[in-house]
Amino acid sequence: MKNILKKISTAMNIVTRKKERLYTSAVILAAGLSARMQGISKQMIELSGKSVIAHTLCAFQNCELIDEIIIVTNEAEFPYYNEEFKNEYGITKLSRVVLGGNTRARSAENGFSAISKNADFVAIHDGARCLITPEKISAVVKAAFNKGAAIAATKATDTMKKADEDGKITGTLDRSKIWRAQTPQVFKKSIYFVSLKNCKSKGAAITDDAMMAEHAGFNVYCIETGSDNIKITTPADIREVLGVLNGRESK
Amino acid sequence: MKNILKKISTAMNIVTRKKERLYTSAVILAAGLSARMQGISKQMIELSGKSVIAHTLCAFQNCELIDEIIIVTNEAEFPYYNEEFKNEYGITKLSRVVLGGNTRARSAENGFSAISKNADFVAIHDGARCLITPEKISAVVKAAFNKGAAIAATKATDTMKKADEDGKITGTLDRSKIWRAQTPQVFKKSIYFVSLKNCKSKGAAITDDAMMAEHAGFNVYCIETGSDNIKITTPADIREVLGVLNGRESK
Repeated sequence: MKNILKKISTAMNIVTRKKERLYTSAVILAAGLSARMQGISKQMIELSGKSVIAHTLCAFQNCELIDEIIIVTNEAEFPYYNEEFKNEYGITKLSRVVLGGNTRARSAENGFSAISKNADFVAIHDGARCLITPEKISAVVKAAFNKGAAIAATKATDTMKKADEDGKITGTLDRSKIWRAQTPQVFKKSIYFVSLKNCKSKGAAITDDAMMAEHAGFNVYCIETGSDNIKITTPADIREVLGVLNGRESK
Repeated sequence: MKNILKKISTAMNIVTRKKERLYTSAVILAAGLSARMQGISKQMIELSGKSVIAHTLCAFQNCELIDEIIIVTNEAEFPYYNEEFKNEYGITKLSRVVLGGNTRARSAENGFSAISKNADFVAIHDGARCLITPEKISAVVKAAFNKGAAIAATKATDTMKKADEDGKITGTLDRSKIWRAQTPQVFKKSIYFVSLKNCKSKGAAITDDAMMAEHAGFNVYCIETGSDNIKITTPADIREVLGVLNGRESK
């Protein structure tokens, strides 16, 4: 089964190989309802004079390897991404704004459906990871060009424990082999397409896009992007993000 | 073998059971040379008008369940912990200042050797985790009173990947069972004593104190203490810590 998937993917790639420059579409997931943020939409929080999502979009805009940006949003925030917004932040690569689904996986799929026909690679990114930089995006995209699939990640620095439901430790993991997955997660379009179909047909529970590709038998590589590529999930995360932003500005 | 260790530990505890109030000694590890801090001693960095180590010590001073504090330091910083320091921050529980060893494990052992004869429990803590609070220390100490051994930890929120030496993902871990270990790590004195002896006789490579107890067959429990109980290791961590401190002060 895994071999068949790889053959389909290879067949789809024949066109890709002939091109001189690879076209990469970024899909930015910003449809979440911020369940742990006390009713505040995390992507709209203003940090250092810019919304969280504007920070994120500027990083992708300023990354030379990104050719277009798709935003996946919710109905309430759809109107935010208008011409005025694009002009204010110079987000000229923004090609489409689409609505998300009920789950993260569904939202990613909606975004993927909206990418350009020219796309060779797709970079899926959490809108709430607003500390991402053009350099880090480039590093992951280049690795994906080379390997087919690569994700932003950071090696575990804490000792990692496995525990049962009561919190009783059942073992200490070898932290030199453990990575915390982040985004962007970048895939050859054909790999993402095949992985998505495979995942849907099996109904597998997945927590990130890499897991879909892993399930379909593709190799996915971790690229070190540092521990400060934080995803805003709780109010405490905002304080951490502000600390990093202030540190960068004072340099 | 594990049963024998448990019996020794039980025998040592008969005295403990008769006491009304349990005595807990905190061992604060601050002997590190801050290899990743560009020559700056991380415990001496001043944040919001107080050194990192002073922040840490104040939290233990203000925790009602802590009866004494032992600092494990290096030769250069030994003189810092004088009467003037104690008076400035009101660290009346500071009972001894001892020198560390070549490794973290050795430093913890030196600290453990210096605790009061009255101690029933020992709380080992990284001096560089300066965002710890009296409430969090209490929560872990109480769990240790109840279970014998408990550690500060936070459930993984990122998707966790296992990868080989090249960063190629070999699997996605079930994050609901994965915890990032922090400190304090609190043990019944007899459990720590037996675990230490067992570990030394076997020469096992350990990355935290809980691992010693796990190896000796004791149950150790994870207590949720939040993701902001950060250990300062790199300059980026300082920015995160400052963000959290500023957030707390503005409340």
